[in-house]
Amino acid sequence: MPAGLNLMPELRKDPILNRWVIISPDRGKRPHEFPTVTKMPHKGICPFCHGNENTTPPEILAFRPDNSAANSPGWTLRVVSNKFPALRNEGGMNLVNDGLYESMNGIGAHEVIIESPDHLAELNSLPVGKVEDTLLAFKLRTLDLKKDSRFQYILIFKNHGESAGATLEHTHCQLIALPIVPELVRDEIAGAQSYFDLKQRCVFCDIIAQEKKTGLRVVNQNERFITLCPFAPRFPFEMWLLPQFHADRFEDCAAEDISMLAELLKESLMKMQVALGQPAYNLVLHTAPMNGNNGRHYHWHFEIMPKLTKMAGFEQGTGFHINPVLPEVAAETLRNTRI
Amino acid sequence: MPAGLNLMPELRKDPILNRWVIISPDRGKRPHEFPTVTKMPHKGICPFCHGNENTTPPEILAFRPDNSAANSPGWTLRVVSNKFPALRNEGGMNLVNDGLYESMNGIGAHEVIIESPDHLAELNSLPVGKVEDTLLAFKLRTLDLKKDSRFQYILIFKNHGESAGATLEHTHCQLIALPIVPELVRDEIAGAQSYFDLKQRCVFCDIIAQEKKTGLRVVNQNERFITLCPFAPRFPFEMWLLPQFHADRFEDCAAEDISMLAELLKESLMKMQVALGQPAYNLVLHTAPMNGNNGRHYHWHFEIMPKLTKMAGFEQGTGFHINPVLPEVAAETLRNTRI
Repeated sequence: MPAGLNLMPELRKDPILNRWVIISPDRGKRPHEFPTVTKMPHKGICPFCHGNENTTPPEILAFRPDNSAANSPGWTLRVVSNKFPALRNEGGMNLVNDGLYESMNGIGAHEVIIESPDHLAELNSLPVGKVEDTLLAFKLRTLDLKKDSRFQYILIFKNHGESAGATLEHTHCQLIALPIVPELVRDEIAGAQSYFDLKQRCVFCDIIAQEKKTGLRVVNQNERFITLCPFAPRFPFEMWLLPQFHADRFEDCAAEDISMLAELLKESLMKMQVALGQPAYNLVLHTAPMNGNNGRHYHWHFEIMPKLTKMAGFEQGTGFHINPVLPEVAAETLRNTRI
Repeated sequence: MPAGLNLMPELRKDPILNRWVIISPDRGKRPHEFPTVTKMPHKGICPFCHGNENTTPPEILAFRPDNSAANSPGWTLRVVSNKFPALRNEGGMNLVNDGLYESMNGIGAHEVIIESPDHLAELNSLPVGKVEDTLLAFKLRTLDLKKDSRFQYILIFKNHGESAGATLEHTHCQLIALPIVPELVRDEIAGAQSYFDLKQRCVFCDIIAQEKKTGLRVVNQNERFITLCPFAPRFPFEMWLLPQFHADRFEDCAAEDISMLAELLKESLMKMQVALGQPAYNLVLHTAPMNGNNGRHYHWHFEIMPKLTKMAGFEQGTGFHINPVLPEVAAETLRNTRI
């Protein structure tokens, strides 16, 4: 270890692509141990099960229909800080410039949303009311973290299954509050802004209209939401779930809409799980950044990516994706899957 | 399967991100078979070993020191068309516009470069002269394919190991000629152009100068080439190998430089393999597109990405990377690794 190196998490910007990455070093790891650094060891007991509340950091939010005490059993949903956070909540931004390079302290929050105390539950197998609770927790945590002016973006996602990056079997989602906007969201906003400048319309709203006209790539829908296989998907069976009404921020979603969203999300995930034989998957919420005026051109949505192929390394090295499945075939397969 | 669907490979553009993907459908696959579509089955015999030349498409290029006949044993390096190509060589571009969406025929070439007839060889364990032959084959194939005006980009890469996307154990590289420029190369060129407009200098040349001054992130170098861990790496132990002289196109590399390049590439790969315990990895050549005037601001290079973490799905969904290893630590580890 070279002397004087910072072992706190750090955000660094690539000087060619202006792309930020988190460097979150793990103390004392040797090279052959690096593959396991994201693992959260639990020595035989699951920290997310009832009775093991003292093995996690204290709860930030919990739903306790029985009014049980904090950090004890009785909860139906629980949010805690990640025990091995990629970012730290203390301190200022501390922007540093060294010749070509820019970096800042790895300021942020990293939380875990445990959707159920049941070790064998999965998000898609929970009753609709519990999926609704999960989405409500996303909203409540976002509204709370928005008060911290250091944060530019709240990233909510789920890694389901080992090959999708999950390190604990017990169902959970993650939330990362960031002082920067992730690259793909930034690019989406720029693309949507260009489209708006040209047509004075939201590109996502136009996509929904065109998709509803042909129906070819529609998976399912209800009055308020729709799930599509996008026209140019990177991954086989990739799905986007969008509000049919225009809205740039997920956290503005009204209670009645969250209930409709829970229904469609559960149904879409169930169809995927049945059609594809319980694949690992990633689910990511794309919503507007904390700051900036994106209300007219941006449109929040979930992206759901089953993990069926292994070309990730090469494709990450080029940004270039080869997808072996037509989205029209994927959508038809999912649409016709009985759950 | 909806009636009237095209089963030929197709390039499609995402209307928000202007990002092209290849949709290369596999006939007659059912959903549960999708995970294996990139596999090249060989029914017990390896199509890349001596004696099995008739199990591949006819050779496009071969090095045969014994002057043996084409498509027979005796070769030391062999280039053939991919038996299961992601793109097809026949036909025109046929741009199609459907409302918001743009697509074109999946025109291109997809070749396999077999670096050695030895089933157990690896690129890094080959003698330097054979690594040089491999790089020479990259150059010769690029110069040949450049004659086809339909192609905008020649993408050369290696998937080593199953978790990096390799589907055959026998060492090989791949080449894909494309009618579009891959997203990440396009973004690199745009970034390098902006930097040049501001400073009248190549950003890659400036990075090399700054890195040589501190030495902190240098892995190894010779008179003509240098291997670095980049300042803001997406992946643990990511390495870039660049010419120390300014050049935008790999295929312009002189014979003496290819020999120096082979030396450093072999050494860098060996260090990685020894330090990290033979990981799967991806190697990608980033070079200037066929067309366009990028001579002053772009700088070709190899990117080498060992496959040590599994967060690919989520990170591909956000463009946002969490890297648990400081590049200074990675570089020091690799630099001090004896091979």
